Amino acid sequence: MNFEQLWLTYVKKENNKEICGIRHIYADCDNPTATHGAEELLLALEVMTGSKPVLHKTPMGDDAEEKNAESAEIIDRIKLCIVPGMKAESYHIYENENWIMIEASDGKGILYGAFALIRQMQREKSLKGLNVFKEPAAPLRMLNHWDNMDGSIERGYSGNSFFFENNEIIVNERTKTYARLLASISINAVVINNVNVKDNATCLITDRYFDKLKELSESFAGYGIRLFLSLNYAAPMELDGLDSADPLQEDIKQWWREKMAEVFTKIPNLGGFLIKADSEGRPGPFTYGRNHADGANMLAEAAEPYGGLIIWRCFVYNCRQDWRDKKTDRARSGYDNFMPLDGEFKDNVILQIKNGPMDFQVREPVLPLFGGLKATNQMLEVQIAQEYTGQQRHVCYLIPMFKEIMDFHTYVAKEKDTVCDIVTGRTFGHTNCGMAAVANTGNDANWTGHDLAAANLYGFGRLAYEPELTAEEIASEWIDLTFGKDEEIKQILLFILINSRGIYEKYTSPLGIGWMVNPAHHYGPSVDGYEYDRWGTYHRADHLGMGVDRSDKGTGYAMLYNEPNASAYNHMETCPEELLLFFHHVPYTYRLKNGKTLIQHIYDTHFEGAAEAAQMRKQFETLKDRLPEKIYKRIDERLLHQEEHSKEWRDQINTYFYRKSGIMDELGREIY
Amino acid sequence: MNFEQLWLTYVKKENNKEICGIRHIYADCDNPTATHGAEELLLALEVMTGSKPVLHKTPMGDDAEEKNAESAEIIDRIKLCIVPGMKAESYHIYENENWIMIEASDGKGILYGAFALIRQMQREKSLKGLNVFKEPAAPLRMLNHWDNMDGSIERGYSGNSFFFENNEIIVNERTKTYARLLASISINAVVINNVNVKDNATCLITDRYFDKLKELSESFAGYGIRLFLSLNYAAPMELDGLDSADPLQEDIKQWWREKMAEVFTKIPNLGGFLIKADSEGRPGPFTYGRNHADGANMLAEAAEPYGGLIIWRCFVYNCRQDWRDKKTDRARSGYDNFMPLDGEFKDNVILQIKNGPMDFQVREPVLPLFGGLKATNQMLEVQIAQEYTGQQRHVCYLIPMFKEIMDFHTYVAKEKDTVCDIVTGRTFGHTNCGMAAVANTGNDANWTGHDLAAANLYGFGRLAYEPELTAEEIASEWIDLTFGKDEEIKQILLFILINSRGIYEKYTSPLGIGWMVNPAHHYGPSVDGYEYDRWGTYHRADHLGMGVDRSDKGTGYAMLYNEPNASAYNHMETCPEELLLFFHHVPYTYRLKNGKTLIQHIYDTHFEGAAEAAQMRKQFETLKDRLPEKIYKRIDERLLHQEEHSKEWRDQINTYFYRKSGIMDELGREIY
Repeated sequence: MNFEQLWLTYVKKENNKEICGIRHIYADCDNPTATHGAEELLLALEVMTGSKPVLHKTPMGDDAEEKNAESAEIIDRIKLCIVPGMKAESYHIYENENWIMIEASDGKGILYGAFALIRQMQREKSLKGLNVFKEPAAPLRMLNHWDNMDGSIERGYSGNSFFFENNEIIVNERTKTYARLLASISINAVVINNVNVKDNATCLITDRYFDKLKELSESFAGYGIRLFLSLNYAAPMELDGLDSADPLQEDIKQWWREKMAEVFTKIPNLGGFLIKADSEGRPGPFTYGRNHADGANMLAEAAEPYGGLIIWRCFVYNCRQDWRDKKTDRARSGYDNFMPLDGEFKDNVILQIKNGPMDFQVREPVLPLFGGLKATNQMLEVQIAQEYTGQQRHVCYLIPMFKEIMDFHTYVAKEKDTVCDIVTGRTFGHTNCGMAAVANTGNDANWTGHDLAAANLYGFGRLAYEPELTAEEIASEWIDLTFGKDEEIKQILLFILINSRGIYEKYTSPLGIGWMVNPAHHYGPSVDGYEYDRWGTYHRADHLGMGVDRSDKGTGYAMLYNEPNASAYNHMETCPEELLLFFHHVPYTYRLKNGKTLIQHIYDTHFEGAAEAAQMRKQFETLKDRLPEKIYKRIDERLLHQEEHSKEWRDQINTYFYRKSGIMDELGREIY
Repeated sequence: MNFEQLWLTYVKKENNKEICGIRHIYADCDNPTATHGAEELLLALEVMTGSKPVLHKTPMGDDAEEKNAESAEIIDRIKLCIVPGMKAESYHIYENENWIMIEASDGKGILYGAFALIRQMQREKSLKGLNVFKEPAAPLRMLNHWDNMDGSIERGYSGNSFFFENNEIIVNERTKTYARLLASISINAVVINNVNVKDNATCLITDRYFDKLKELSESFAGYGIRLFLSLNYAAPMELDGLDSADPLQEDIKQWWREKMAEVFTKIPNLGGFLIKADSEGRPGPFTYGRNHADGANMLAEAAEPYGGLIIWRCFVYNCRQDWRDKKTDRARSGYDNFMPLDGEFKDNVILQIKNGPMDFQVREPVLPLFGGLKATNQMLEVQIAQEYTGQQRHVCYLIPMFKEIMDFHTYVAKEKDTVCDIVTGRTFGHTNCGMAAVANTGNDANWTGHDLAAANLYGFGRLAYEPELTAEEIASEWIDLTFGKDEEIKQILLFILINSRGIYEKYTSPLGIGWMVNPAHHYGPSVDGYEYDRWGTYHRADHLGMGVDRSDKGTGYAMLYNEPNASAYNHMETCPEELLLFFHHVPYTYRLKNGKTLIQHIYDTHFEGAAEAAQMRKQFETLKDRLPEKIYKRIDERLLHQEEHSKEWRDQINTYFYRKSGIMDELGREIY
C-alpha cells in the first residue's frame, strides 16, 4: 500500500485459490491496446499469484490446449477476443466451462474488460459464474488538466505538473502509469494544458513541440486515450503576427486551415481542441463583433477533415461587474450567451458546460443550458480539483454531487431528460457528447495530495462509463482496490467519504449561496471576500436577511428552467431548501420546513459541520494500527487540519451573521 | 520641469539681476563635503544665469579680489567658510557688504547652507539683507529603504530599487543624484536594504559585497550621508553555520565582534545597523529566552569600538493572534515589550519607535513608549511610503500628520515634553536620537510614482532638520522649487496637498479604527479584510456599534499614557473624536460633539471625502495649460483614479455599515 499506483496497487492473493489457478492468457497481440490489456492482466496476476502466467500471442485461443483432468475443474485461463457487432468500447466478461472470456468491441473494450476483471480479482469476488456486460454511457470521458508549461498548475493542489516543466513536455514512466490509471477507469481523452493558454502554451501547435507531442500522443493511444490541446484563440496574431483573429476573415480562416493540416499531420491520434474564449480576459470572437458560433465553427471547419473536435467552453460572463449593480446576474450569462446560438454549431463542435451557473461551488443548481439547448452537442464539465471544496486539504467526495447533477430532470423531453441522458446522447441521439472533469492530479507521490481525493478521480471515470453505479458502490470499489480487503477500513472510509460533502457544505457557505471564500486563492472563509468585488458573486446580506433574488421579481434566472423546475425555483416555499439562498433573498427569521429560522439553521449547521469534521477524524484514528504509518499520518494530518479549519469556518460564518443580525443562538453556544 | 531631479530642477532666472550678478564663489576645497556644496552652487548658478561663476579654490577668501566700483553695489560673490564653535551640521548665511557669507560648523553645514541659499535663489527671494542661522533639530535624519536585493521593494510604489538589481549593488549616476537630493534636505543617514533581511541580503556583511558597499558608502559620505545596513539577527547561523544566535553565548558574541571589526574596516563611513528582531517571523533573542536589551547590547558592544550605532525596531507584536481573543491588544505590544527594559540599553543603541502603536494608519494615537521611556535613546519612525495612505496613487501629504505627532505632549516632563523634544534630545539630553522615514522612492522616472508624493520626501527631511517649519511652509517651498514661480499653480497644489490627508481620512476607515483594507497588498477597501485574521487588527463592528474598547474596562491600553492623556483617552466623552473608535466601542447612535450620530458621521464623511477627491481633481484640471503636458497627464491620471477609487471606498464603507446597522442615511443618499 504505497499509493504510488493508487488503485492499481496489486497485492499478493496467495490464499485465493481461484486467482492462483489462472496460468494462461490467450490474446491476439496485433492490437496494441488489447495487448496492453493482456499485459496488465499478466502484471496483476504475477503480483497476485507470485508467478507470471503464460501469454499465448496467437489469434485468440487457436493454440489453446485442451484442458486436462487436473485443470478441468478450475479456472486456469483467460481468453481475450474482439468480436464484431458490439458498440465501441464495450466488453462482455463471462465464465464458461472454467474459461474466463473477455469479448470486446475493440482494443479499448479489451483493455477496459481486462481492468474490470482485475478489479474483480483485486476485490476477491468469485469468478465462477461471472457475467458482466458493459457499454460506455458517455462517448467522451475526458480530463482537463489546467497545467501550465512552467510546471505550475492552476488550481492544482497536488504539486506540480507531470506534463510540463520549464516549458518542456515530459514523457516518462509517470506518464505511462497515468495512462494506465486512466485506462483502468475508462477515460478516453485528456487535455494536457490549461484552458488559459498563454506564453509558451500558445506554441504547442508549432514545430517547437510536435516531436514530444507525438511521443505523448502515441503513448496515450496505446491506452485508448486521445490527446487534446487547449488552444489560444488569438494564435494567428501571437504566432504569426496577423492583425486579427476575426473568425469571418478569409486570411484567418486560411491560417487555421493550414495550421490544422499541419498539427493533425504532425500529431497522430490528436483528438482536437478545447477553447476558453471571451472569458476572464481570454481572447475570442467578441472582439470582432462575432459570436461564439462564428468562432467555434471557423475552427471546426478547419479541423473537420482530420476528424478533429472543437470543444468550446460556455464559461462566459462579465467578470468586471459592479457590485452595486443588482440587475446583472452572472448566473444567467452562460444561458444568455449560448441559448440564442442553439442549432448553429457544426457537428464537430461540442459545448462544454459547467455543472452549475456559477463556478464549481459545493452546491449549485444545474446550469439551465442543460434542458435549454436541443440542437447542440453538449458536454458536462465538473471539477475534481477541489478548488472550492477544500482544495484537497479537506475531504470532499464529490461523486454524490455529480450523481445529483446527472440525475437532474431538465424536462426537455418526456423521458430521457436528465443531464446524464443529454450528455450520453440518449436524449437527442448525439454522438459527440460526454463528460469532462478538471483534473486533481499532480506530481505529489500520492498523485492527489489528499489520499482520499483519489476517490474523486476514480469515481469520475467510473461514473462517466457507468453512470448507473451509486456513489457508494464507487466508493466501495475504490476503497477495496486501494486499501485491500479490510472490512473495518472499508466501513470507516465509506462513512467518511459518503458524509464528507454534506459535512463540508454544513460548515461553509449556507444553502447554495456559495463564494464566502478568500479571493484569488479561494481557500478558507471570508464572508465578504467577494461581496464588493467585480466577479458577480454576491450574498447581499444585510441586517434583515440574505441571498440573491433570482425569481421573476429579481433577475429572472429561475425562469430559464423548463417547468415544473422554473415554478419550483421561483417561489421561496417550493424552492429546494438547499438552494434557497441561491434563488431568494430570505429574512433571517424565515422558517424552514423543519421549523427552524434561517439564522438558527446557519448556527446549527455550522456547529454540526465542525463537530462532524472532528468526528470524522476520530473515526479515522481508530484505523491507526490497520494502516501503514506513513499513510495513516499523511491522512490524519489533513483530517486534523480540516477539523481545525472547519472551526474557523464555523466561527467566522456564525460571528458574521450574529454580528449582522443581532439574533442570538437559541442554544447559547459561543459566537464571537 | 522634468521631475527627474525633483526639487533640484534648476531653471533659467535671466531676468533676476540679483542672481545674475553672482560671478565668484570662494571655497576651501580641502573638505570634500564642502566642495560638493560649492559645486552645487556653481551648477545652480550656471543654469540660472547661463554661465558658470568662477570657483576660487583657496582657503576661504584669501585670494578674494577687492570689489571694484562696478561690483561694489551688487552681490557678486559667495564665500563658504567653516568656522569653529558652531554646533555640528549648522550654518549661518548672511549678506554683508554685498558678500553672501555661508559660515558653517563643518562640511555638512556648508553643504546644507549652500542648498539653503540655492532654495532662496530658486524661489527668487531677495538676497539683500539675508540672515539665516540654522542648527539641526534631530541629530539622526534617516531614510529606511525596504529594498530587496532582487530589485523589488517591499511596500514600494515607485518601481524597482535603484540600490539593487539581481542581487548586485548599483552605484551609478542615479545614486549620486539621490545623494544630492537627500543632502539638499539634510538627510544624513540611509539604510539601503529592507528590514526583513533574507537570502542574499544576509550576505551584505560578507566579502561578496564589501567592494561595492565601500564605493557606495564613499559616494554617500561626500554628501554627508552615513550608510547603514539592515542586519539579519540570525547571521551567525546563516552565514557561518553556528548552531545558535543566543546573545549571551560567548561564541556568538565573539562572532559578532569579529564580524563588526571586519565590516567596519571594509566599509568606511558605515554608520551602523538597523534590526528588526522577533517581529513578523524574523529571528531574534526571544528564541533563546533573552530579551531585546540582551540582543541589542550584544551587537552594540561589538560595534562600539567603531562608533557604530545599533538601531533596534520596537515593532514587536504577536502576529498570530486569534481574532476571537478580545483580551490581547496589539496596540499594547510595543509598550509591553520595551518599557520594562528602559535604562538597560547601551548608549550606542537607539530604539526606533513607529509613530503609532499599530502600523502607519492614516490616524493613530502616538505610541506611548514616547513619554514612557526616559533612559533610552529614541528615534521616531514614520512612513513616507504610502502603504496605508493611498500607495502613491492617492495624494496624501503626510507632513501635517507628522507635525501632529511631533507636537504631541507626552507629559513626561514639565516642559520640552513633546515627541519632537524627545527625539531631538531636548527632553533627556540624548545625542543618539532622531527621526527615520520608510522611503517612498524607486526607479520611476519621477522617483515617487505620484509626482505629488515627492512632497513627502522633501517634507520629511526639512522637518527633521527644522521641525519649527509648518506643513504649509514646507509645501510652499516644495511647490516653488519643483514647479517654479507660478502663483496659480502654487495656490492649487497647496490646496490639494494641505487638504489631502483629511480627504483621504474621510473616505477611508472612520475615526482612528484603521485597517479596512485588502489584506496583504493593503490597497483599497475591505471592511472585514482583517477582521477575522491573525494580525491583531480588528474593528469589532456588530449591528449595534463598532470600535475597540481600549479603556481601563477594555484592554487598558489608554492607561499606558501619562496623565492627563490617559484620562482623556479613557473616557468616550473626552477622547479626541478623531480617535474615538480606536479607544472605544461606540454605538452607531452615539452622538458626536457636533450632534451627529456616529453612523451619520460615517455616511457624511464618506460622501464628503469622495466629493472632495473629485473637487481636488477639478481644481487640478484648471492647471492644464500651465503645466507641461506629460506632467499634467501623469498627475491627472492619478487624480482621476483617486476620484474613482474614493467612490469605491465611500460605497463599500457606507454599504457595509448600512447593511449592518440597518440605519438609513438621514439625507437619503444612495447606499447599496
